[in-house]
Amino acid sequence: MTEDWIAADCPPPSTAHATAAEARQGALTKPLGSLGALECLAVQLAGLQKSDTPKADEAPIVLFAGDHGITAQGISAYPAAVTVQMLHNFANGGAAISVLARELDVRLHVIDAGTLSDSEIPGVVFDKPRSGTRDFSIEPAMTAAETHFALAAGKRALGRAIDGGCDLVILGEMGIGNTTSAAAMAAALIGRRANDLVGAGTGLDSMGVAHKAEVIDDALKKHALSASHPKPLDVLTCVGGLEIAALVGAIIASAQSRVPVLVDGFIASVAALAAVRINPSCRIWLIFSHRSAEPGHDVVLDALNAEPILDLALRLGEGSGAAVALPILRLACALHSNMATFEEASVSERKA
Amino acid sequence: MTEDWIAADCPPPSTAHATAAEARQGALTKPLGSLGALECLAVQLAGLQKSDTPKADEAPIVLFAGDHGITAQGISAYPAAVTVQMLHNFANGGAAISVLARELDVRLHVIDAGTLSDSEIPGVVFDKPRSGTRDFSIEPAMTAAETHFALAAGKRALGRAIDGGCDLVILGEMGIGNTTSAAAMAAALIGRRANDLVGAGTGLDSMGVAHKAEVIDDALKKHALSASHPKPLDVLTCVGGLEIAALVGAIIASAQSRVPVLVDGFIASVAALAAVRINPSCRIWLIFSHRSAEPGHDVVLDALNAEPILDLALRLGEGSGAAVALPILRLACALHSNMATFEEASVSERKA
Repeated sequence: MTEDWIAADCPPPSTAHATAAEARQGALTKPLGSLGALECLAVQLAGLQKSDTPKADEAPIVLFAGDHGITAQGISAYPAAVTVQMLHNFANGGAAISVLARELDVRLHVIDAGTLSDSEIPGVVFDKPRSGTRDFSIEPAMTAAETHFALAAGKRALGRAIDGGCDLVILGEMGIGNTTSAAAMAAALIGRRANDLVGAGTGLDSMGVAHKAEVIDDALKKHALSASHPKPLDVLTCVGGLEIAALVGAIIASAQSRVPVLVDGFIASVAALAAVRINPSCRIWLIFSHRSAEPGHDVVLDALNAEPILDLALRLGEGSGAAVALPILRLACALHSNMATFEEASVSERKA
Repeated sequence: MTEDWIAADCPPPSTAHATAAEARQGALTKPLGSLGALECLAVQLAGLQKSDTPKADEAPIVLFAGDHGITAQGISAYPAAVTVQMLHNFANGGAAISVLARELDVRLHVIDAGTLSDSEIPGVVFDKPRSGTRDFSIEPAMTAAETHFALAAGKRALGRAIDGGCDLVILGEMGIGNTTSAAAMAAALIGRRANDLVGAGTGLDSMGVAHKAEVIDDALKKHALSASHPKPLDVLTCVGGLEIAALVGAIIASAQSRVPVLVDGFIASVAALAAVRINPSCRIWLIFSHRSAEPGHDVVLDALNAEPILDLALRLGEGSGAAVALPILRLACALHSNMATFEEASVSERKA
C-alpha cells in the first residue's frame, strides 16, 4: 500500500556523538550540570544531528490550517470564518507566528490542509482532500482516504521545508474548533474522560467547557472509541482534523528524515502522541517546547513522558510556543560549541 | 552622609503606558491572554520604559566578582583561586556569560569588586575597597565603610553601563564561596534556618551542604543576626560579600535611573532582596529571569513575591540565566509592537 510509509522506522540518534557531547559539557568552564536543561538540549541535539557542533539556526516553521465540522455544535468562542481570515493574516505577516518567524529569521510555510477556503490565497500552499471536516458528533470527521491524503500532505510540506537542509523543524497549527478535536483524540488515545482534557480553547466560559466535554464523550461513544486501545488511525479519522493529520504526517516524515521536531503546545502534542502511537520510533526525534495553559496539555505531556523547555502560560498555537523556545536551543548550542574548557582557560577543576 | 543615595526614592512606572499596552494586547489578532507571560512582560516593560513600543534590545551585562574569606571553612567544591582565573576567562571570551553576550550582541562589563587579584587584568575594571572579604565565621566580612564603597562601586559600574541609554540591564556575579554568603544573608533577612537556604553551590555533596548550613547558623548567632528583622545593611556587612554589595548598589542605582533590572539566579536574587529591604521603591523595577536549581532560590523568590520567566535548572550565576531569558523579552516586545490588530487584519472578534 502507498500508505506504508508512515510505519517505516525512523533512524536512531548517534550514541557516539551524544557521549562525546556529554564529555565536552564536563570539560567546559562551569560546574558540571550548572547549565541544567541547556546541557541536556545540546547533548540531545548533538546525538540527533550526528554533530560535534549542534545547531538550531535553520529551523523552518511549517503551519497547517484546517476547519472543523464540530464547530456546528457551538464549541468555540470564535466563528469558523476566523480560520480563513487568519490564513490571510499569516501570509500578510500580521499574526504572532509571522512576527516570530521574522524576528528569528526563519522561513514560515503556511499550508491550507483543509480550511473552508475555496479560493487560493497568495503565500499559502493548498494541499487538501476537502474543505473542512465533517461534524464528528454526527459522523466520522474524515474518511480513511482523506486521513491518508492529509498525512501525505504533511509529508509533502515537510519535504519542501527541509529541502536544502535544516537543523530542526517547528510545526504549528491553526483551526477554529481544533482544541475540541485534539481533546477528543487525546481522550481516546489515553483512555481518559473528556473532562480531563478540555479547556477554554480560544476563550470558552465554564459552561462552554462543560458542553465541549459532553460533545466529546458522546462522540467517543458513538464512534466506539471509548474502548481501551482504539487504533490511532481510527481515532484520527473519526474525531481528528485535516491539519492535525497533516501534523502527524509531518512529524513522522521529519523523524524519518533525521530532522528533530520542536513540538508546540496542546494540539501539536496530541498530534505527536498520535504519531508516536502510529510509529513509536519517531518519539526520540521530538523536543517539547512549552507547557501550554490549556489544561489537557499536562495529561498529554505525561502520556508522552515529555518535559517541555518553557512554561509561559501560552495557549495560542500556530507554532508560537515552539518559536519562542528556539532562542533557548540556539543559546544552548552556542554555549556548547563556544565556551572554553578548563584546560584552554587555565581554570582549576574541582577539588578531588 | 554621602551614603544617603541608596535610600532615595526610585520613580514609579507609567500607569498610562501600561494601560495603553494592555489595551493594545486586547486588540491584537489572538485570543486575549493567549500569549500568557509574554503579554505581561510587554505591558510591564511599556510601563517601566514609558513607551508604546517596549524594547529589550540594548541590555548590557554588568558582572561583579569577589572573593570570600569564608572559603577558609571548606564550604566550596572549588578552590578560591578559581575566582581570579574566571576573571581572565570572562575577559578572554571563554566563559558562559562571554558566549551569551556575543550571541545576544550585548556589551559585557566585568568588574573586580573584591577578588583576591592584586594585579590589573585587561578588560576588567578594578573598583574595590579590599581584596576578598574576611572570614565571617570569625569576624564581620566587611566594615561599614567597605560595604558603602562596594555599594557605590555598583552604582559607578551601572552608570558606565547605561551611559548612552539602554532598555534594561542584566546584573551578574561570580565568586567562589558566594552561595554561602548569599544563603547567610537570606537566612538573616527572611528569618529562616540556614538549612532552608543552602544547596550544593558549585557542587558540594550532602555532608558538605550540612557543614555549610552549620557554619552559617553559627555565624548568624555570633553576629546577632538571628533576631527578627536585623538591619539589611548590617546583614550585608557581617555575612555578605563585596560583589554582592556591588550588586545591591547597582540594582538600586538602576531603578533610580528608570532602567529595569533583569535579575539572575540565587545570589542576584538575594542581592535584590537586600536592595528591596534597604529601598522598597526599587522592587517594581525588577524582572526575575529564572528559577535556579539552587534550592534556596525558591525561598528567596517567595520572599520577593517574584515569579520568574524560566525554570531550566540553571545554577551557574554570572548573569547567565538572565541572559538566556533576554530573547524571551525581545520576542514579547516584537509581538507587542509588530502584530496586526483584528481591525488591521480584518479578522472577526470573538462572539458576543
